[in-house]
Amino acid sequence: GMAARGGFFLSLLNYKTEKYVIAENRKIGILFRLYQLAVLGYIIGWVFVAKKGYQEKEEAIQTSVFTKLKGVALTNDSNKGLHLWGAEDYVIPPNGEQVFFVVTNYIETPNQRLGFCPEVSLRTSCNNIFTITYLNAVVYSCGMNVVKGNLPHCVCLITTAAYVLMCLLSFREPLLSAAENFTVYIKNFIRFPKFDFSKSNVLETAEANYLKNCTYDSETHPYCPIFHLGNLVSWTGSDFQEMAVKGGSVGILIEWKCDLDKDYSLCNPQYSFTRLDININNSVTSGYNFRYAKHFKDPKGESFRTLYKVYGIRFDIMVNGQAGKFSIVPTIIALGSGIALLGAVSKVSFYRERKFEIINFK
Amino acid sequence: GMAARGGFFLSLLNYKTEKYVIAENRKIGILFRLYQLAVLGYIIGWVFVAKKGYQEKEEAIQTSVFTKLKGVALTNDSNKGLHLWGAEDYVIPPNGEQVFFVVTNYIETPNQRLGFCPEVSLRTSCNNIFTITYLNAVVYSCGMNVVKGNLPHCVCLITTAAYVLMCLLSFREPLLSAAENFTVYIKNFIRFPKFDFSKSNVLETAEANYLKNCTYDSETHPYCPIFHLGNLVSWTGSDFQEMAVKGGSVGILIEWKCDLDKDYSLCNPQYSFTRLDININNSVTSGYNFRYAKHFKDPKGESFRTLYKVYGIRFDIMVNGQAGKFSIVPTIIALGSGIALLGAVSKVSFYRERKFEIINFK
Amino acid sequence: GMAARGGFFLSLLNYKTEKYVIAENRKIGILFRLYQLAVLGYIIGWVFVAKKGYQEKEEAIQTSVFTKLKGVALTNDSNKGLHLWGAEDYVIPPNGEQVFFVVTNYIETPNQRLGFCPEVSLRTSCNNIFTITYLNAVVYSCGMNVVKGNLPHCVCLITTAAYVLMCLLSFREPLLSAAENFTVYIKNFIRFPKFDFSKSNVLETAEANYLKNCTYDSETHPYCPIFHLGNLVSWTGSDFQEMAVKGGSVGILIEWKCDLDKDYSLCNPQYSFTRLDININNSVTSGYNFRYAKHFKDPKGESFRTLYKVYGIRFDIMVNGQAGKFSIVPTIIALGSGIALLGAVSKVSFYRERKFEIINFK
Repeated sequence: GMAARGGFFLSLLNYKTEKYVIAENRKIGILFRLYQLAVLGYIIGWVFVAKKGYQEKEEAIQTSVFTKLKGVALTNDSNKGLHLWGAEDYVIPPNGEQVFFVVTNYIETPNQRLGFCPEVSLRTSCNNIFTITYLNAVVYSCGMNVVKGNLPHCVCLITTAAYVLMCLLSFREPLLSAAENFTVYIKNFIRFPKFDFSKSNVLETAEANYLKNCTYDSETHPYCPIFHLGNLVSWTGSDFQEMAVKGGSVGILIEWKCDLDKDYSLCNPQYSFTRLDININNSVTSGYNFRYAKHFKDPKGESFRTLYKVYGIRFDIMVNGQAGKFSIVPTIIALGSGIALLGAVSKVSFYRERKFEIINFK
Repeated sequence: GMAARGGFFLSLLNYKTEKYVIAENRKIGILFRLYQLAVLGYIIGWVFVAKKGYQEKEEAIQTSVFTKLKGVALTNDSNKGLHLWGAEDYVIPPNGEQVFFVVTNYIETPNQRLGFCPEVSLRTSCNNIFTITYLNAVVYSCGMNVVKGNLPHCVCLITTAAYVLMCLLSFREPLLSAAENFTVYIKNFIRFPKFDFSKSNVLETAEANYLKNCTYDSETHPYCPIFHLGNLVSWTGSDFQEMAVKGGSVGILIEWKCDLDKDYSLCNPQYSFTRLDININNSVTSGYNFRYAKHFKDPKGESFRTLYKVYGIRFDIMVNGQAGKFSIVPTIIALGSGIALLGAVSKVSFYRERKFEIINFK
Repeated sequence: GMAARGGFFLSLLNYKTEKYVIAENRKIGILFRLYQLAVLGYIIGWVFVAKKGYQEKEEAIQTSVFTKLKGVALTNDSNKGLHLWGAEDYVIPPNGEQVFFVVTNYIETPNQRLGFCPEVSLRTSCNNIFTITYLNAVVYSCGMNVVKGNLPHCVCLITTAAYVLMCLLSFREPLLSAAENFTVYIKNFIRFPKFDFSKSNVLETAEANYLKNCTYDSETHPYCPIFHLGNLVSWTGSDFQEMAVKGGSVGILIEWKCDLDKDYSLCNPQYSFTRLDININNSVTSGYNFRYAKHFKDPKGESFRTLYKVYGIRFDIMVNGQAGKFSIVPTIIALGSGIALLGAVSKVSFYRERKFEIINFK
């Protein structure tokens, strides 16, 4: 009893070393050492140095972006005459969102009034391409100005519910070609919730004057948050003036790769730029446009509208990031499995050369 | 010195094999083999085949979505008469965003003018439900048209700063019931930054005609990016016409599960649909509506407005994805810990049957 | 042949136990046991209990947010007189988005007409700060009302394309100081795609009345989804009235940390609040404002506009979350590497004390 238990506890305080058989076989020996070196090299060199296996990773980034455009354009439309475009006109929506659209071209159909589709006027005023025309269909007129001006090309489309009279004007060069010289200021605030680390792409160190005058350039000004629209497009390998005609879509990728074991100031964004409406051959996806209307009322209280079909470039700011910081769990896991590998060979290999003693339980 | 070191280096080139004791005990032997088989089966079958343990995973997906709606509706309002609705009218905002709202019903309060709340007119023109009325409160009138038309139901709300005169019209069936047949074209561009892999849900292979005519269906057209609004709602288990009255919110989930070890063409989106304003019993969250105003000026330069309370369906496109690609680190870790398990038993178990030699250090 | 194979299979059914050498050295023994205890303690205590190493983690959260503001403000502008602000006026955009802007201050330039920049009128009507003035530059006039009212401060800016006449009014206290008492209702729907788990921040249990009257407070009402704007700002450590003058940006962080092995009702959001335009010293980033215009036409069909420069607070709702659920793979990996560590010492340490037998292969 007593003695036995005592002996057990003593034995617990012993440690065991294995009894080994040395085979003086150089070849296998060298192979074996090489294997161990390889595993050690992998653990230290690859898992720890290259892949930072000792770090806990965070990929779920919190991000907030706001944008502000600067620049003025003057358009000279044959129908409308001179028109001045400020940011309040060419940025849609105007409230500085992460995804914004810059008008580079447009078709205006002013003074549309809701009325009925008169067969005659259709025939005469807009040689419609349909053989049959629809009497008493509800339509928007093409608007006096346009009809008075150079005669538009009209079609009477049939839909399930009603008929819409659309007025298409033949295309010219982009009206807002000056948009190439607009600039956009991008403020991006990010946070890694797991580490409660937050930063902005606008360097606190930089003084206001620098930010007022700089424009981003990957070499000279990598941390300036002000971008020249023409550059943004050209960096995607496209031509601004060409894209401006039918519109397009550009992605601005902001990537934060932060090693939080290093200094705060070393966690900085990387910008890259890509075109999002890539498959050019596909007419459905190439270009970017949409319609919107401004509504008015005449002195009699009758409402009319001016319809705009705007073509332009949609900028889509996409932020992603990854932060790493030392943590015990991944370290242990990487270590543990590495050690297991170190031991693997001696356990599985060279079965043949093992020496045995036979013992019988009976 | 010399010799000793030489001997040490020689010994380094040796390898050790352990000396084993074989217990001819079948039962334990079988158990032991079964355990090893189980572990092997787990490592190969589960970790590697099922869970793709050899792959590095990426869950932080970059995504850009834009949408375009098609369809025309004709409404016939007792007060307003016929009205034609194009995408520029019923999509809010009109610029093709990831989250968009389609008007299915609305209450219009035309020609509101800012004025003072005359006790009398309140009493007469809109039998208000408050016992006390507020003299000289700043209010928006209910608008001539409405008052001339069927008399509205008015209330004079008290707030901290001012009093608002709201005009409620009794509900009818959704005015834009035709919205059920609208279609939305959804373009989704995604990128897995870790692998620099990008793709769009609009198949490059598909020719323009296909995309012009198809509508999505999980069986027949799983990769057509054009969706029928009626279907979208019905797939969430709701009835469009019913939802159209008070509005609602629908989530369109696009899921990208890509095995980048396989071919590019096999990485395709999976669509699913869910209703986001689920808890019907809760009056606060069921339905979806908001107010906006169109502003006008009369010949005298006095401003007035038309207030719209629009009910409709908000579509919220949510994209998530996961990409996997072979990588050495997770492979090693899975292997290592697996091997460790293989070895585990032989190390911990059968303490009892161990044989010992006693050696004394002195 | 036969016999040999038979013998091999028999040997497979044997199991091996290692032959050990016991060193009766208490010191090393104690050290060795302590090491093993430490490793065991780490595996059980840290990896499993604290870090939940047995769980599969999901950080890619799907989220949908919509917002609705309540409150009315009355402004009294020296030029414009009384004006009543409803949500349809002060929330931009009005359609309940995740990122919304609340107007707290504004500069109105009514009745701007596009015209040419007459040197004289510039000199007289708005003592411009430029020495040279530009004849026949296309400009927006400062608008009758303003000129008739207290004379504004005007500058004629030169740009690449055109000249813009901007009308700056000296600042006063925020016009919509009442915005402090507005409330915002935030509905957040989330989903963890990996576990197909979805929930909303609006508790199904809460009855409508509670949600109509409560306001969020971290102590008393942690799950009420209605927030008082004044509180939101004060919780970021800023003063609302001060921020309201030049605008600002506030982040509302909603964090979902869910242990899906526990009950559904225990998965609840955590709200926190932070100011996003932090670097005050930097004039470029402090404050938040943008311009937009309302367009009108006079009886002659000539268009004019009212330009608004709105200052206000942008609220940016950022949602992140992490869900964990038991899964066999991480469990095995944690276990495996732990066991490997347990075995590590006995393999690597105490090389010195090993006993050897020499055998020669020849």
